[in-house]
Parts: sequence; C-alpha cells; structure tokens
Amino acid sequence: MTHLFDQELKVINIGLRSFKDTLDARNVKAVQVDWMPPLSVSPQAASIIAEKREQIEDANRAAVERILSGKPMLVGLGKALDTIPRMKENLLLHAGPPIEWKRMCGPMRGAIIGALIYEGLAGNPEDAERLAASGEIEFAPCHEHNAVGPMAGIISASMPVFIVKNDEFGNASYATMNEGLGKVLRYGAFNDEVIARLKWMERVLYPALRKAVERVERIDLKAIIAQALHMGDEVHNRNRAATSLLYRALAPQVVRTSERDAAASVLDFIGGNDHFFLNLSMAAAKASLDAARGIANSSIVVAMARNGTDFGVQLSGTGGQWFTGPAPVPDALFFPGFTKDDANPDIGDSAIAETYGLGGFAIAASPAIVQFVGGQARDALNYTLQMYEITAAENRAYQIPSLDFRGTPTGIDVITVVETGILPFIDTGVAHKKPGIGQVGAGVLSAPAEPFVKAYERLAEKVVKQNGRCGQFSSGFETQSTA
Amino acid sequence: MTHLFDQELKVINIGLRSFKDTLDARNVKAVQVDWMPPLSVSPQAASIIAEKREQIEDANRAAVERILSGKPMLVGLGKALDTIPRMKENLLLHAGPPIEWKRMCGPMRGAIIGALIYEGLAGNPEDAERLAASGEIEFAPCHEHNAVGPMAGIISASMPVFIVKNDEFGNASYATMNEGLGKVLRYGAFNDEVIARLKWMERVLYPALRKAVERVERIDLKAIIAQALHMGDEVHNRNRAATSLLYRALAPQVVRTSERDAAASVLDFIGGNDHFFLNLSMAAAKASLDAARGIANSSIVVAMARNGTDFGVQLSGTGGQWFTGPAPVPDALFFPGFTKDDANPDIGDSAIAETYGLGGFAIAASPAIVQFVGGQARDALNYTLQMYEITAAENRAYQIPSLDFRGTPTGIDVITVVETGILPFIDTGVAHKKPGIGQVGAGVLSAPAEPFVKAYERLAEKVVKQNGRCGQFSSGFETQSTA
Repeated sequence: MTHLFDQELKVINIGLRSFKDTLDARNVKAVQVDWMPPLSVSPQAASIIAEKREQIEDANRAAVERILSGKPMLVGLGKALDTIPRMKENLLLHAGPPIEWKRMCGPMRGAIIGALIYEGLAGNPEDAERLAASGEIEFAPCHEHNAVGPMAGIISASMPVFIVKNDEFGNASYATMNEGLGKVLRYGAFNDEVIARLKWMERVLYPALRKAVERVERIDLKAIIAQALHMGDEVHNRNRAATSLLYRALAPQVVRTSERDAAASVLDFIGGNDHFFLNLSMAAAKASLDAARGIANSSIVVAMARNGTDFGVQLSGTGGQWFTGPAPVPDALFFPGFTKDDANPDIGDSAIAETYGLGGFAIAASPAIVQFVGGQARDALNYTLQMYEITAAENRAYQIPSLDFRGTPTGIDVITVVETGILPFIDTGVAHKKPGIGQVGAGVLSAPAEPFVKAYERLAEKVVKQNGRCGQFSSGFETQSTA
Repeated sequence: MTHLFDQELKVINIGLRSFKDTLDARNVKAVQVDWMPPLSVSPQAASIIAEKREQIEDANRAAVERILSGKPMLVGLGKALDTIPRMKENLLLHAGPPIEWKRMCGPMRGAIIGALIYEGLAGNPEDAERLAASGEIEFAPCHEHNAVGPMAGIISASMPVFIVKNDEFGNASYATMNEGLGKVLRYGAFNDEVIARLKWMERVLYPALRKAVERVERIDLKAIIAQALHMGDEVHNRNRAATSLLYRALAPQVVRTSERDAAASVLDFIGGNDHFFLNLSMAAAKASLDAARGIANSSIVVAMARNGTDFGVQLSGTGGQWFTGPAPVPDALFFPGFTKDDANPDIGDSAIAETYGLGGFAIAASPAIVQFVGGQARDALNYTLQMYEITAAENRAYQIPSLDFRGTPTGIDVITVVETGILPFIDTGVAHKKPGIGQVGAGVLSAPAEPFVKAYERLAEKVVKQNGRCGQFSSGFETQSTA
C-alpha cells in the first residue's frame, strides 16, 4: 500500500501547532514556530500558575480520568417536580449562568412565557410576562440542579425529563425531551402549536418512553455516542445517527409496552426529528463532567453554558462559581428571510457537548456542519486538531474516523486556553432575538475570552489559598458567583 | 480561516494520478508523471478502440447519464415464483456468471443444499446434493433474471423478494431479504437454524414488510443511500446507517399494519442486523445499471459479479455476454479460528455496488472498513481517488464528505481500466470454502484483470462490426457467452 506523502516533504509551520499535527499524521517532516498571542492575564496569576503547574497537572489528570471513565446511561424518565433535585412549582430552570428576568434575552423570555402558559400559571403572553417580572417566579440555572437545557433551556415543574445516571460514579443528570426544530419553546416560540406539542409530549410521548426504558432498564448513551461519531454526527448540531440508533433501541420496546396508536405516533415523532438525541447527548456530557467537579487545583473546565446574554464557564477547581462575559453572535447559515441582524447572541447549555469533547471539538467527524457555513472538510479537520491544543486528554471511547480513529480532544484546560489564545470552538443553533419567533439558523463560533481569563485568575487565587500563599489580583474583569 | 497547505509546497508525483488529485484538493502544486503499466491487449483491438474513441465516448455519456438519473424505489415484496421474470419451481438463481453444479464452489453448493431443503425438494443434505447434480434442477445467474444475490446469492421459488423499481426508466430488480451474519444460507450454511430462520422470514417478516411498504407505496432508496454515505456507510460492507434509516422509514408502518408480537419481532430482527439494507443497496444498483444496458459502442461496465469460481463482467455495449476469469481470494480480517486457507474465492453479486460507484469505490466515506484490514483513513481516501481514474462520471446524488462532498466515482470504463492498469477495488464478505460452515471474515480485493481484457477486446470487435470494419482478435483469453 503506497501512501500520499511517501515523498519527502519538509515544512516550517509558522502558526497553529495543530497544522503541524496534521503534517505529522501524514509523515511530513515539520518544524513548529509558534506565534498565537496568549490571552492577557495578570502577571501575578501567571506566576502562581507557573509555580504550581505540577500540582495543577496532577489535579487535571484526576479530573480528566473521571470524565473519561464516566458511564452515562439513560435509566428512566420522570416529571421534573418529582425528579430534579430542589425543583419547585414556582421555579423555572434556564440555560447558562444565573440571570434575572430584566437581563434575559428575547428567546429566553419567550420560552418562559410559553412555560408559564403550559403550566397553566398564565392565560396569555401578557399575563405570563407580568408574572415572570413579579418576583413570584424563581429562576435558576439548569446546571445548578444537575440538569441541562438546549437553547433557552427552560424546565418547568410538569415537564417530563430524561434521567441519566453515571454508572461509574453514581451521580445523575436531567434533560427534557427534544421538541423538534422551528417553532419550539427552546427557541423562544410559545404559540398554541408549541403548547399543544408540549402537552402531547407529556401525555403520550413521556409514558411511552418511560415504559420502554423501564423494560430495558438502561440504554448505554456512551455506546450510542461512540457509534454516532463513526456515522457523521458530532452529537451537537448533527444527531441523525445517534437519533437513529436510539430509535432502534427504543422502537421494539415502545411497541411492546404501548397501545398501537400511541406507539405509532411516538415512532413518527422521534423518526421525524433528527435532533431527538441532542438532549440526551447533553445529559450524558453533564453526568460525565459533574463527576469531575470539585477537584482542588484543577484547571479543567466542567461547564460552558450561555443564557443568551452571558457566556459562563465553571472549572473543576473553583467550585460552583461562574465566570462570565458577553455571549457573542454565531456565524450561521440563516433560514430564508433571516439575517445575522435577527440572531440572538449564543444561547443554551448545549456547549456542554464541547466541554465533553464533542460538538465543535469533534467536528472533524461531521464535515457537513462546516460545509453549511461555507467551510470545507479540511476546515472541520483543522478545527478539531486545534482543540487538541487546549485539552488535557484524548477520549478512549469517542473516535474520529478521518483522523485515523484518534480520540476526541477532551477536558478543556483553562491554562492552555490562556497560554495559546485558542478559544473553544462551538457549533450551535441560532434563535431569533425577539420572543415568540423561534429558530432562524445554525452555525459556529469561538467562545469569548473573558470567562476564561476570569476563571484562570480565580483559579490562581484558589491555588494560592490552597497552598498557603495569599493575594488577590485581576485582569480587570469582574467575576460572578452563585455558590 | 487558515488552511493546512497555505505553505507553498511543490511535488513531483511519480505514480498514481490519484495521489496528485489529493494534492490538488489541498492546493499543493504537483506535476504528474505516470508509470502504471496498462493491461496487455491485442494491438488490433487497441487500434480499433483508439480510432473509434469518439463514438465510444458519446455512447458512454449516454450510458452514464442513464445510470446517474435512475430513481431506484422499493415498491413492494412478493414471492420469487410470482415476481421474478421466468422464475420456475425447479430453477435456482445464483450469484455471478453462469456455472454448472460440478464447477460450483463449496459455499454455493452449501446454499443450494439449504435452498432445496427449504423448498421441501430434499429431506437431507445428501438427497439435496444428489438432486442438484441430477439435472432436474436448473441453475441461472440472478443477473439474467433482473435479480441480484449477495454471496452465493441463491434464490428459490418460495423465497420472498424485494421489488425495486427504477422510476425513471420503468425497469425493476429483485433481491431476497438479508438473513443476518454468521451461519446463514448465503455464506453456504444450511443447518436447521438456517432453514428455520428462512421459514420465519417467509411467514412473519415477509408479510409484515409487504404490508408496511404497501402503506407508504414506495421508499426512496437513492435518498437513503445518499444519506448513508454521509453517515459512514459505503453500503456494501457497512450498512449500519442505511439500515437505521430504512428502519425509521418502516417501523411506524410495521406497527400500524401488523399485530404487536409480529411487529416487535420484525423490529428486533431488522434492528439486530446492521446489514439488513445490503440486499436493497444491491437491488438499487442493479435497477439503476440495467437501464444503461445495450447502448451500442459503450465501454461502460454494467455488471461485475462472482460465483465463487469465476469473476464475471458485462458491458453496456456487448449485450448479455459475460467476460470471466478466475475469482481471487480477498485480503480479509478473519473471524477467530479461521485463516486465508479457509477462505473461498470472491463470491456474490454484491460487486454491483462497486459497478454503481458505491462499496469499494466510495470507501473514503467509510474508513472503518479499511481500518479492519490494517489500513488507515488516508488509504480509504486513496482507494476512492484511484477509482476516479477508471470511471466516466461523478455521482450527483452520492457524495463523500471527507472529499468535500465530491460525487462518488461512477461508471467503470473498461478502456480506462485497460489503459491505466487500475482494477476496480471491491470490499466484500468472505465465505468458508467448504459448504455448511458460513462466513469466516470480511475484506477487500482488486478485481482480476482477465475479464476486463476480454471485455475490451470483444467491445473492439463489436465496434468494428457496428462501424463496418471486420476482424477477430484476442489476447489469448477465451470468452464465455450466455446471450
């Protein structure tokens, strides 16, 4: 078998190290000259981090090992109120870091309006807005209740949720069932059709899936994700394969446990929505990453999440604290009639996929996503190669065929993000910025720098405290804390 | 967006042109120096072909346009006897070019034994062998009855078959339902378990699928194949995605038209066999290629098929004549306990996939297949790039993501095969050479040269007759004809 680059090429690569990796992978001799500017952090923080690098790396190895050894399993479904820790009837969970009603973006407000109508707490959009602003309704991040929600990510008390258990560590995560595309609650739509669909999901889809999962006891989400990566999904913006595999796992059980009409309508619904698996890939990521929280000194990112206003980051070594900055607007392919002017800034907990080494980090497995924003297959390859620069490990279970089945880049290290200036690459859906409209496109973006700089500096402070030196310092960004 | 090869590399490529294509695709300046030895053909034939090249290329454009514009649809199922043209109770159809009982390989004999027991024409293997050798049973290629069969490819009168219609040209093709892997009839196994499964398929699977397809009227196989190529299948040795998509299309209809127990067992069966789509991808290829038969002067290959003894080729411009040579043994990954010594030579009509630009020709879409025989992702890429050298077109519907969604190489031109010396690349299952054992592995191979040389020379003769020059000439190979 002859190979493409048996010819002796020599390259001096000035720029991203990942390009040299590609050359290495093709047996091309290459020399690396770096040029990428690091993010600007306080010199004190940088000096602490340099000094404590060994402890940090030990901590990171432990954190990453917990992420990689997680075994996320779908074990059941339940009503949010009965299932999600500390859920309440007047509590709405939302995507991203904490945010109050008056700072919420249009699609999140739209989804809240819809959820209040769905719950019967408001009779119309105007009443719902008043109620939401009144103080009677509480808001909290999904992430702070072991849950994740795509886009607006609203979870209310009556909504059915998937229960995903990390069989290795015993922790659980929760996510709603995916509604489909277009005019749906998570994109901020709330018309009658949206509410009727949510009611059908509660009345027909939920009991059918609950009984089907009960019959098989658990469905191995890690196995489905691993296969889906071999089938063109990155399980964030593309879930066709994972949905198909889940469908094959569920269908015979749905047939055995539900009446014919219910079974057929459930199969039609899931079969008609290539994104049905998305919420499960998010819950799998959440269950796996939560097991790596709270490891002292670790600079590994355990959550990236956006509420449509702020982009938030959490680290293993800095507890429940959120580090935030303004959410950017994605580059996107817009649906006919819409432009970037219509687009809301980046929104949703779905960046948990990237935090887990999937989505934009695994986009080499899914070049179709890059193609629809005008890129080529090699761009998809390069995005993934770049992400190896800022991650601490390669996933043993999740592989990328076009990179000779190399493991996906997993475990974002905020220190290498700062030092290389390479920001996490995310793919995402795009919501209209006004409430009530819905999805307007799908696209890609790089995470903003600010949350990573803040997280880095806070970690340095924590490391100092942990190791008996003291001081506080800042690049000038203010941090936001809820824990 | 920066690209991998923005650096100005320059390459002199001595060898396969396809490697230069890869460099071109990556914007690397390269100069091509060819060296591949052409196949040895008679000088008279070569001179005729050179002289008539323009007529041949006109004919090829017409042939290829018919292949590309085909619309293969699954439109129903029926019993072979009632459905396949000129089917008879004492007729067994088999894979590959024509062959008599005494020259048949072990797995084909095994499958015939099984089919005779299944039909109730023999009570045990010994009786079946006697009957098969007696002359009372007739044998004919599937291909000569508009059908295709994987591996041994045996179709007997009672077997249910898929009916695939080419909506563009009105012709139909037929194939059995896939039995699964391991001990199955098509790999030459014939024990009680094999016969019981075939009976269940006739009694339960067949009516369920017939009713399900009836309800939706037609299932677009071209659309499924196009999507599956974006999902890691090449729909010959890997059919997981296509099977999943077919499953999603069928399941709700099976639920609506069959009793619960039957529906559940049918879904379990299809869901448990990632190769279920294979026979349909073959029938889709057959229906599309048959529409390109009989175009005077065309050097396009319309069938490659193996009976486990001979490898046969048919051209559009040479009618029903088969050009044959000994079938080679594939390079394979063998199941534990088996080696190449156990392997039967290449067998089955499934090379219709490659004839249609799928399978080995689309293997860049499915690097997992190359990996299991020790290759790397770039080898898969290179195999596909090579196939562009010997094909007349790129498929508009079937694309390869890792080649920036380039169309699959489609329409093998026997003239460029001879001139470049590049032989069609095929992936395949491997049967044990003895009857009764079954599958022992899966692998890849290049087609043998002999059938292509014979086809080239016969085409030259036909072109001469068509255009009023006369003569007969030969490279020394003898041709075999049944039409």
